[in-house]
Amino acid sequence: MAHIPAEEGVPGIRSLVMFRPETGGPLYTLAQVLLRGPSPIPEEERELIAAYVSSLNNCTFCCMSHAAASRELYGEKREIVDCVLYEFGQAELSNKLKALLLIAAKVAESGRSVLPEHIENARMRGATDMEIHDTVLIAAAFCMYNRYVDGLDSFTPTDPEDYEEMGVRLAANGYVPPQNSNS
Amino acid sequence: MAHIPAEEGVPGIRSLVMFRPETGGPLYTLAQVLLRGPSPIPEEERELIAAYVSSLNNCTFCCMSHAAASRELYGEKREIVDCVLYEFGQAELSNKLKALLLIAAKVAESGRSVLPEHIENARMRGATDMEIHDTVLIAAAFCMYNRYVDGLDSFTPTDPEDYEEMGVRLAANGYVPPQNSNS
Repeated sequence: MAHIPAEEGVPGIRSLVMFRPETGGPLYTLAQVLLRGPSPIPEEERELIAAYVSSLNNCTFCCMSHAAASRELYGEKREIVDCVLYEFGQAELSNKLKALLLIAAKVAESGRSVLPEHIENARMRGATDMEIHDTVLIAAAFCMYNRYVDGLDSFTPTDPEDYEEMGVRLAANGYVPPQNSNS
Repeated sequence: MAHIPAEEGVPGIRSLVMFRPETGGPLYTLAQVLLRGPSPIPEEERELIAAYVSSLNNCTFCCMSHAAASRELYGEKREIVDCVLYEFGQAELSNKLKALLLIAAKVAESGRSVLPEHIENARMRGATDMEIHDTVLIAAAFCMYNRYVDGLDSFTPTDPEDYEEMGVRLAANGYVPPQNSNS
């Protein structure tokens, strides 16, 4: 049971957004812009940043769902996702993406943990201002979504198949808020 | 100098939103809904929750600006804000607001730090489901805004008078995104 009377059986943020659609709308709009809007960072990498930050924040729901979306978007290269989440050093990533993930990890710790050398490191590996900006904002946003989902103890499915279905849906349709249960 | 070429001299989140208006729009919409939209928590208390979480996250810009907005909205009772930020135990707060601020502090730590006893404590002091929801989401959102502002090292004014002006503006007008410098 969640801390508030959210719709039972509806997983993660969706049940919270049904409880409070006024705030849910902007939360979904933001996720859609961050993860599906125009950006120099490909969608599969943005979903990976989201899943990685969520894993650092121990948010099972967000980590599992965005990892599933990232796998779908990576297609044949889907094993990259598990490499990053479970054996970071071994993943076949570009040096640029490794540098961006390091910035994301620092953001998860604190905004003040991002030092000029982390930015310089990313730039030396080819990251642009926009890629650095989008990485910081995606990481920061998941520090919000993770805390919202876990702070209210919303329902977290444990069956990996549930997340696979979510991944397919999120990859195909993006972030569409649920209809209010009363509407 | 910020980590990215944001407009110099424009403080905090505003310069970042001018750099990237596509993401800035939803960030301002969310702030407006959270801090000025309908909620059982009065505006001055919502601004106080924002300032308090920002102080826990060591985000000077967000703490100073939302503290200033809260003071403006509290009016004659403005000293409450400094009591909370600098001598929590002494502040003349309702027991309900104290319980909500404790939940906000737990959210700042981690979503998983919010335990059933923190929720129960707030309920025993009169907090409703909606007040608990809004407290968790405001606290979570400031874990994002704080990391965005500090993670990109945006310009932080040091003159307290600058924040007083901001507080007056935020209290009167709410959260209106800046115009893009190119528009």
